[in-house]
Order: sequence, then C-alpha cells, then structure tokens
Amino acid sequence: MDYIEGGWPYSNPKDYEFFRAMKEYSLTRAKLAAFGSTRRKNVRPKDDESLNSIIKADVPVAVIFGKSWALHVEKVLETTWEENLSMIAESVEYLREHGMEVVYDAEHFYQGYQEDPEAALASIEAAWRAGARVVVLADTNGGTPPHEVYRITAEVRRRFPAMALGAHMHNDIGCAVANTLMAVAAGARHVQGTINGIGERTGNADLTAVLPTLELKMGFRVLRDEPPPVKYSRLREVSRLVYEALGVQPNPYQPYVGEFAFAHKGGVHADAVMKVPRAYEHIDPALVGNRRVFVVSEVAGGASVVVKAAEELGIPLDKRHEAVRKALDEIKRLEREGYSFDLAPASALLILMRHLGLYRERFRVVEWRVVTGPSEAAYAIVKVWVNGEERLEAGEGVGPVHAIDVALRRALTVSFPELRPVALRDYRVVLPGSVKSTESIVRVTVEFGNGDRIWRTVGVSSNIVMASIKALVDGYDFALQTKELKTRAVENMWKRS
Amino acid sequence: MDYIEGGWPYSNPKDYEFFRAMKEYSLTRAKLAAFGSTRRKNVRPKDDESLNSIIKADVPVAVIFGKSWALHVEKVLETTWEENLSMIAESVEYLREHGMEVVYDAEHFYQGYQEDPEAALASIEAAWRAGARVVVLADTNGGTPPHEVYRITAEVRRRFPAMALGAHMHNDIGCAVANTLMAVAAGARHVQGTINGIGERTGNADLTAVLPTLELKMGFRVLRDEPPPVKYSRLREVSRLVYEALGVQPNPYQPYVGEFAFAHKGGVHADAVMKVPRAYEHIDPALVGNRRVFVVSEVAGGASVVVKAAEELGIPLDKRHEAVRKALDEIKRLEREGYSFDLAPASALLILMRHLGLYRERFRVVEWRVVTGPSEAAYAIVKVWVNGEERLEAGEGVGPVHAIDVALRRALTVSFPELRPVALRDYRVVLPGSVKSTESIVRVTVEFGNGDRIWRTVGVSSNIVMASIKALVDGYDFALQTKELKTRAVENMWKRS
Repeated sequence: MDYIEGGWPYSNPKDYEFFRAMKEYSLTRAKLAAFGSTRRKNVRPKDDESLNSIIKADVPVAVIFGKSWALHVEKVLETTWEENLSMIAESVEYLREHGMEVVYDAEHFYQGYQEDPEAALASIEAAWRAGARVVVLADTNGGTPPHEVYRITAEVRRRFPAMALGAHMHNDIGCAVANTLMAVAAGARHVQGTINGIGERTGNADLTAVLPTLELKMGFRVLRDEPPPVKYSRLREVSRLVYEALGVQPNPYQPYVGEFAFAHKGGVHADAVMKVPRAYEHIDPALVGNRRVFVVSEVAGGASVVVKAAEELGIPLDKRHEAVRKALDEIKRLEREGYSFDLAPASALLILMRHLGLYRERFRVVEWRVVTGPSEAAYAIVKVWVNGEERLEAGEGVGPVHAIDVALRRALTVSFPELRPVALRDYRVVLPGSVKSTESIVRVTVEFGNGDRIWRTVGVSSNIVMASIKALVDGYDFALQTKELKTRAVENMWKRS
Repeated sequence: MDYIEGGWPYSNPKDYEFFRAMKEYSLTRAKLAAFGSTRRKNVRPKDDESLNSIIKADVPVAVIFGKSWALHVEKVLETTWEENLSMIAESVEYLREHGMEVVYDAEHFYQGYQEDPEAALASIEAAWRAGARVVVLADTNGGTPPHEVYRITAEVRRRFPAMALGAHMHNDIGCAVANTLMAVAAGARHVQGTINGIGERTGNADLTAVLPTLELKMGFRVLRDEPPPVKYSRLREVSRLVYEALGVQPNPYQPYVGEFAFAHKGGVHADAVMKVPRAYEHIDPALVGNRRVFVVSEVAGGASVVVKAAEELGIPLDKRHEAVRKALDEIKRLEREGYSFDLAPASALLILMRHLGLYRERFRVVEWRVVTGPSEAAYAIVKVWVNGEERLEAGEGVGPVHAIDVALRRALTVSFPELRPVALRDYRVVLPGSVKSTESIVRVTVEFGNGDRIWRTVGVSSNIVMASIKALVDGYDFALQTKELKTRAVENMWKRS
C-alpha cells in the first residue's frame, strides 16, 4: 500500500492517539496520512485549528477535503464561491509550506460537475495549482451511476491532461467498487477505499475487491514488489483480521474473500467445476487465499456435495445407494426445521455415517441441567453415557453454554484423552425463522479445531442451551467418529452394499 | 415487474410445486417463466426431458441457457461447436412451437466473446434467428469488469441493431449492479436479478439497487403504471419480506433499503443533513420506503444525535450541559465494553435521562434464576421491586430467555397495566468480540412495539441470559419512563439547569 489514512485528528481524540501510537512502528512502504477539511471561512490558515491539527499529527501526508458544489458552499458553508476557492488554495499551500505532501479530496465532485462543470473544474484547478500531489474526485453521496463516473472523469482528464487524478467512491447505489474501476478506466491512478468496504451508510469502495480486480483483470500493478500470485494470497486473512478487530461478523457473500465466494451448490456447477475449474470460477481461489467449497443444499444435486465431502474422509459413495438417499432426505427434512449445513458439513457427515452403518456410538448425553442467575456465573450438570457407564459431571462457566461445555469436556476427556487438544474456534448464533422473538428457533454453529484440521457443526432448538449442546456434542462426536475413518471406512462400506 | 422466473422444474421437484401452486393466483402484470437448459447433445428436442419439463410447467415464458464459450462446449458438454449451435436453435424453436415466449440466456457470453468474438456472436445469432424474444448476455462467472461489459455489449448492439438485449450479472468482483447498469447504458433493455441480490456464491444483481437507479437516476421507466414517487415507496418492505421468507438477517449496509443506508454518524454530516438533506443524501429516503437515522457513536459529533433523539421526546438539550457530557462519556465507555447503541437508541436515552434527573425508578430486578434441561422447556424465577414492594413470579418458556420474559411481564403488568400491549418484535444475538467462543461477550438487541411506536434496547454480558435480561428490562423501563415525558420533561429539565 502507498498510503494509510489514519483518521481525522481534529474531530476525534482517538485518531490523535492512533498517530501517536504509530510513532513506535516503522512502516517500510506505506506513508501515513492525516485527514481534515480545508480552513474555515474567513480565517487565516495559520489560525485554523483543523489545519493545525493535521500538522500536529506529524505525518508526511495530509488529505484534505474541499467543496466542488455550489449548493454546499452556499447552504452548508454559507460563504461565497470566491472564498471557497481561496479556502482550497490557501489550505493546500499552507500544508505544503509545512513540508507535507497534500492529497486533495474534491467532495461531491460528480454532483457539482453535473450542476456546473466549469465551477467544479475551477475548484480542482485551484487545488492543483496550489501544489496538491493528486486531486481525488469524490462521489460523496454515492449516487452517481458508473457510466456517468466514466464520462465525467474522462472529461476532467481531457481538460487537465497533467493532473494526477484519484477516485473516492461510496456505495449508496451499490456501485462503489465499479465506480472506482470506471474512474481508473477513465484515467485515475490513485484509489481510496477501505478493507471490506467498511464505512458510513452503505460503506466505501471495498479494497479487497478493487485491488485484485485492478491487478488480476485490468492489468495494473497495484501493490509493490511481490509478483501477482504472491501479492493477494493473504487477502482473505487481511479481510478477516479487520472484521475481528472490529468485532463484526464477516460477510459470507463478499467477493473474493467471502466464505461462499467460491462455493458451488447444485449438481450442474459442482460437477462441471470439478472437471474444469475455469468453467465456473473467475479466478483460482488460492490467488486470494480463499478456497473452493461444496455446499449441501436442498437442490437435488446436493448429493454430489455430500459425496465429495465423504470422499475426502475416505468414504467412496454411490449417489444411487439407498442409504445415501435416506441420509439426504434426513438432511432436507432438518433444513426445513431451521438447520443449515452449508457451513456445518460435519453434522451432515455424521447423519450420512449413521445411515451407512459407519457410525459407532461412543458417548451419549443422558441428562443435563443448567442453573444461572445475576452473578454472570452459570452452573451445569451433565450425565453422559460412555462405553456402557454413566458419568455425572459439573461445570461452572461465564454463561450457560460455557458451563455445559466445561462439564461435557470433563465427562468425555477421561475416556477420550484424544479430545484434549480439541478447541472451540468460533461460536455463532442466528435466529433463522421469519419471526424473531425470545420464543424463536435458534441456530448455533460451532467451529472446532485440533491443530490438524477444522470442522463445523450445527444445532437447532428454541432453547439456545439445547441448540448449543447439540452442536457441541456433534463436534466432539465428529472428532471421535472420523479418527480411524480412513483405515476402516472402505471395507465396512462395501460389506453393507 | 414484467417477468417472474419461478425456478428450474427439471432440477428440483420443489420448483415444480411452485408452478403448480401459482395456478391459484392470477398475476395482473407479471408473466411467469420456467428456467432450464437447451437440449442435451445428440437428442431430439421432443425427447429431451429438460425441455419437456419447461413445457410441463405450463407457463407463458421459457428462459433457457446455452453455451457461448468454446471451453464449455468442448470440456463440459464434450461436443462440437456445430452441435452446440443446433442445440440452441432447435431448443428455441421447439419451445416456440409449443406457444412459449423464449428468453435466451447466453451463458458465459462475456468470457466467450473475449476468447472468440465471432463464435460468441454466432451463438446468440442462432438463438435470435430461431425466434428468441430477447437475448440475455450473461456474465456467469461474474468476473468481467464494468468497462469491458460496456465495450462488449455496445459491440453486440452495433453488430445486431435489431436484437433485443438483456443483462444477467453475478457479483464475484462486486460489480453485479454496476455491470447491469453498464449493459443498459450500452443498449440492453431487459435486466435479470434477484431481490436483495440473493444468489449462489456472491449473489446476483440486486434489484433493490438496480431498479431505483435505472428509474430515479438514469431516466428509464422500469416498473409499469404507478408514477415514480409511488413505485418504490414499498421497496424496503419488499426487501424485508424476502429476507423474512428466507430466514436471513437483513444486511444493514444494503444500498437504498438497509438500516444504515441513510444513517448519519458524526457531527459534520449530521449537522449539515439537517440543514440541507440533499447535501449528504443521494435521494429522499422516503422514495424507497426508508428513513433517515442518526446514530450514536464514539465520534465527538455523536452528541448531536442524542440531542436529536431527545428532542423527539420533548427534551430540549444543550450539548455543552455537563449532564449531557457525562451521559455521552458513559455511552462511550459502554461501547468499549461491547455495547452498540446505533440500533438501540432507547438504551442510550435511558442513560441520558438518568444523568438529567428525568429518570424515576419504577421497578428493579432484585433476583433471578433460570433452570433448563433437555425437555426444551425452561423455568425462571424473578424477584422484582415495584413501588416499594418485592414481588416474586415464576415463568415457563421454550428457552431460558423466553422463561425470564414471561416471569418479568407477570411481575410488571400487575402494577403497570400499560405494559400489556407492549410486544417483542425482534430479538437478535451477536458476539461482538474478536474471539468467538462459548465464553464470548454476547450482545442482545431487542425491538419492542406497542402499536403506536417502536423502540430498541441493548444488553451485553458474557452470560446470554443476563444480556437478554438487561435489554428486556430497558425495553419495559423505556415504555414507562417516556410515557409522560412530553408533559413533564421540559420543566424538570430547566429546574435542574
């Protein structure tokens, strides 16, 4: 990355903290930039708190926004167009005099241009003549359609062939990524965006889509140094990191990096993609650190997915086998009850194994109770049948589900020490029903890992504790059931056929 | 809408059911369409099960897809290009002979065109000459950038000026909406998409963004009959209906219809949008059935949001008032603990009212216990202090949160009959922390309504039951605290200042 814009020090003390904290890091490539507005009306730059806060951030680059649209100058700033031009020029000059590189963001440029092209052009010319390193055309309200972005950017390009142009797009009509690409197609060579498109209202241009498209499909060199196949191989990881830092659930449908970005559902696509990946995949998912996923669904072709997943475990399957058909019928029935196996194939595989006679019961939860109260602690009692014996264990946790998990692990690890390295990696709750209330059906999805591999299970109930127990039990059970599968499955399978 | 494509009867018995069920409805505008592929290789159309299943669906329109890309013909179908052209032409003719209007989807058209323009053009010419009503250019892998979609669509237009063209776009590089708009800008006059963009992988073109943009920003008449201001006024409602039918949580960042599509956070925008809405809104939110929202945030300008919300309740506030500043400090502190008031302003307002002395304690939860077990039932005991007395009540529910809600209502409605019409409308659970496990912090958001108005509250704890109780208590408390506010608030406020 060339620039990292770290915040608006004038508007938020936390953003100041960021610049202060960053002093401890030496960035090898990116330059840090502080954001702000042009000076206020009728104030000298040196007396403007906002401009001085940018200088005080002590970074090499300033990004300042100014007005290109008469409506804003008259109604929001309540000043004259002449004063607006001075505000732009003097602010850029002032920051330049303090040794900063200045990126000028022309706020509402496209709307301003549509109402008065000459005025909008004059506003960016003022910034450019004052020494801005790049003039960024912003679609601040996010409402400009992509063909208009192209037309207007191309006209600016023709009018100012030497001006370095950038693009800053918002997603209000769902076109932030495309508008950025269209601006580049028309001559812009600097793009602004955020990882995962996170930003106010509907968000900004999502760099996880803009960057690989520019590089892999439009022939630009965007990130420096590494050759293309390496460059984006950690893109999914970067996307996840940002979601985790923000405490936001990742969008599974996100282009390039989403859980489902390369998911194939249904027979035709799944069959074809196994033959010729290029036939139904726009890029190799590994290029962006993602992977191909086959999802179980109610579509008849879902069979091929269970078959594929089973094969990975060493269970060769025949789709026409009656046991397979019965397993798929059970999966479909559970889906109608609120289950979803798309992200929890381990629970679907347990169903399949039961039908195929590959399942041997290792343990069973016979009874459980949870008690909780206002101390934020919860207590659980679990009675588990293991190898013909019943074992009663207690657990204490921060909430009912945690307490149950503690008791369950205690009860199981005595007999199955191989479960000790099994860790919970993710726990999600959704209400899949159409009406959401405290009586709703709850779907819990749990991700497990043991260092070697990762698997996911699902449980559904109107009682969140019950739904959680179902998913937890499937998770530990899956670890036990599949442990010896490769060595054992094949003979067993054919014995029954 | 002109067409509703109801499914692929050959691939899925549920889709057959749809067409059968639809016989009971008479559509006034839209024509129903059944989907399928061209005939298989080396089979006569009348012996092709897939084509016959389309006829059997007994609807006026057939949508069939065929191949435009040599890779697919050779590697997936494993046949010759000549046979491919016959498959296309004969399939269109066969369906036409059975009285159907035929929409031809040219699968992978853009990729086929990029590799061999003449072959791709020959494939759509075959469909057109055979009598297709419209030829739909599909970006099946979703990887074509918008300027390429424009270039290729415009070339097709030049080559076949009389051909009716359509667009079918996927979102794999985040451009499905924009690519649809670019195809229309280049001459397409038929668009395919789905409500909310729901579709495989990263989804299809989202009609809730495509339609209003074509109509409100590009000057097309898309939906029939109603004049523009009426047409889209239920767009948000349609979007919600589809999410609810699918049991999927709405995307709050969705263009036009999302919860945050017209949300203003931070001082500059919030202040300006109140002065001149057009300054920061690309359309009037009411045009698409949405509304402007001010969100509380850690950005200093968040003050104006609380102030605005308070004003709606008849509490005139001064941002510099010390009590207001203290309330905002508490809100910021809670946000660092995992609270989020963006969607739960009622909980933020209760904090504000406490600091302003506008809060009078009406009840308090003194004690509670929940017991649950494998019967999917849960039992709760709640002790509530109401008007100087303690009241103990029990509740039974389908899960622990439901049981608590039942007990709480029992305890409160005796003293506060005005709470009887208060109903829970929505209940959501997210894990806002960066690590998700059974020990995670849980954030519960609850939506309440009483017929007159709707309010939302939030609770956070690592114990999901505790988090739920906090949100429930705030919900009932808010109803009581704000009941007489307009009459009482103003004097009290100034007495204290």
